[in-house]
Amino acid sequence: MPVPQSLARVFRGKRVLVTGGLGFIGSNLVRRLVDLGARVATVDSLVPEYGGNRRNLAGIARQVKVHIADVRDWPRLPRLVAGRDYLFNLAGQTSHMDSMTDPQTDLDINCRAQLAILEACRQHNPTVRIVFASTRQIYGRPDYLPVDEGHPLRPVDVNGINKIAGESFHLLYSRVHGIAATALRLTNTIGPRMRIKDARQTFVGVWVRRLIEGKPIEVWGGEQRRDFTYVDDAVEAFLLAAARPAAVGEVFNLGGPPPVTLRELAELMVRLNGGGEFTVREFPGDRKKIDIGDYFADDRLIRAKLGWKPRTDLETGLARTIAYYRAELKHYV
Amino acid sequence: MPVPQSLARVFRGKRVLVTGGLGFIGSNLVRRLVDLGARVATVDSLVPEYGGNRRNLAGIARQVKVHIADVRDWPRLPRLVAGRDYLFNLAGQTSHMDSMTDPQTDLDINCRAQLAILEACRQHNPTVRIVFASTRQIYGRPDYLPVDEGHPLRPVDVNGINKIAGESFHLLYSRVHGIAATALRLTNTIGPRMRIKDARQTFVGVWVRRLIEGKPIEVWGGEQRRDFTYVDDAVEAFLLAAARPAAVGEVFNLGGPPPVTLRELAELMVRLNGGGEFTVREFPGDRKKIDIGDYFADDRLIRAKLGWKPRTDLETGLARTIAYYRAELKHYV
Repeated sequence: MPVPQSLARVFRGKRVLVTGGLGFIGSNLVRRLVDLGARVATVDSLVPEYGGNRRNLAGIARQVKVHIADVRDWPRLPRLVAGRDYLFNLAGQTSHMDSMTDPQTDLDINCRAQLAILEACRQHNPTVRIVFASTRQIYGRPDYLPVDEGHPLRPVDVNGINKIAGESFHLLYSRVHGIAATALRLTNTIGPRMRIKDARQTFVGVWVRRLIEGKPIEVWGGEQRRDFTYVDDAVEAFLLAAARPAAVGEVFNLGGPPPVTLRELAELMVRLNGGGEFTVREFPGDRKKIDIGDYFADDRLIRAKLGWKPRTDLETGLARTIAYYRAELKHYV
Repeated sequence: MPVPQSLARVFRGKRVLVTGGLGFIGSNLVRRLVDLGARVATVDSLVPEYGGNRRNLAGIARQVKVHIADVRDWPRLPRLVAGRDYLFNLAGQTSHMDSMTDPQTDLDINCRAQLAILEACRQHNPTVRIVFASTRQIYGRPDYLPVDEGHPLRPVDVNGINKIAGESFHLLYSRVHGIAATALRLTNTIGPRMRIKDARQTFVGVWVRRLIEGKPIEVWGGEQRRDFTYVDDAVEAFLLAAARPAAVGEVFNLGGPPPVTLRELAELMVRLNGGGEFTVREFPGDRKKIDIGDYFADDRLIRAKLGWKPRTDLETGLARTIAYYRAELKHYV
């Protein structure tokens, strides 16, 4: 991908910390920042159930300082945040189901640790520029589509509640304490380096894995419409949000190419895989309780304010993703 | 106050736990529940900066089982919640300023401990009926007045963010796990047994104290309009919310008599006190950042659904409050 001159000018030589930097979006962001000439450090807990994977920094590991640390480990935070120009804050627990079975862990990571990170910045690095990875999960079941940033927040699970608090802390610290922060509400993000072991990060991950392994995939429901951001486009949004003064204190939805139903997604993936099977079944009961139905984002605000737009169509994004895991499967299962 | 027959029928002989039961609203609720014939236990941390005061149960202490425990002390929660028919969950950190200077403590009490209480209920007492004390602080600066329950939540301080999470956990557990819960969004509540040492619970407390002590009171701003619920009316709302099936899973604003400006409130209090002085000054800078301006509640929903209404006018409520502290001052300062 060509590097826009302006972003290279912003990040070259800059000291950047990425939390969750061995994870899916985090590692793609780290790779891009290295390309842009930034001096990048990452924090990642490498908790096996989460998204971190050392393979995600293959080829650039020596250009990145990797701290294996948990954002719940408060005493380490001051030294990690001190002296950074930018903090991309992507560490999080992403599984909706895990948030219901182990709600306190979700709270400690998505809510309590976020406050600790912000307090560390307030005390040790108040001029840092922060971009926080929030989620469309906080909207719950949409009242209307597409969902804009003014839509009520009515989370359907513990993860959504804690992510609201985590996002709110960032905006509060920006407004009251002057720590410049932006929140991006991500929708489903797909691409190389996502977790494919299971559906904890995204169901698309486990679909990719099963197709490549020649196993049938299960589509729950099937008629829900969803949008998907290709990871390179998500990375671009993080960089623009950090680079543009107009983004300070703001919240932006990220969307993607036009939404599709999950059944259409499955059909497309089978075709791109050159074969495969899927079955459509009813939602399992415990998941149905926290399913949000149709969702797709109105992302006109970030398009207008930051000049962002999704550049990768769904077919291209999925094809690249499948190709990546064909080559790399053994490092991810 | 006459005991409505129906509430006595609901609560007589019932096993009730009140968290924050030595605090302001909690202790008034405990006293009423004892009158109604309930078997009442309380949990209170008696942290000196919070609202708990043993004097609040004067005269009924032997009829109430008092557990001095902190809701942050998880291992104790299962035994505290087990076997209760009702849980009135009022334990909380209420100071907006403290939430900004020590945000993690606010989070641990108002957010994390609430989740622990609900998990304890889910595992050890899923049939308990819960009423949670939420707050108008979660609305932030109103977009319109009066503020109804559909108003956007845009908290201006850490306390508001954590109270949203605490409230959301209750509603989620009600919806997903079937633990019947109701949340009441309280506005300023006044009356006997409120904290008057300082403004941590309500600025009205410190005003009452200073007037009785013959000291001038400070009015910050002065033109903000606010509503005030007399504590007996708030207690009635908690009881109705617990007693009425229509309240399950719902959120209700509590309001009060017609709102007044803070200057009008000061004038009224000076008059009821039979003298005193107040000065009007600009907001201190650190408080201005988190002030919400005008606020008063639209409480038509609870009036319509539960038949609640505020019965005590502001003058009567303030007069009773001042009379209480004239007699009891030494136990509260």
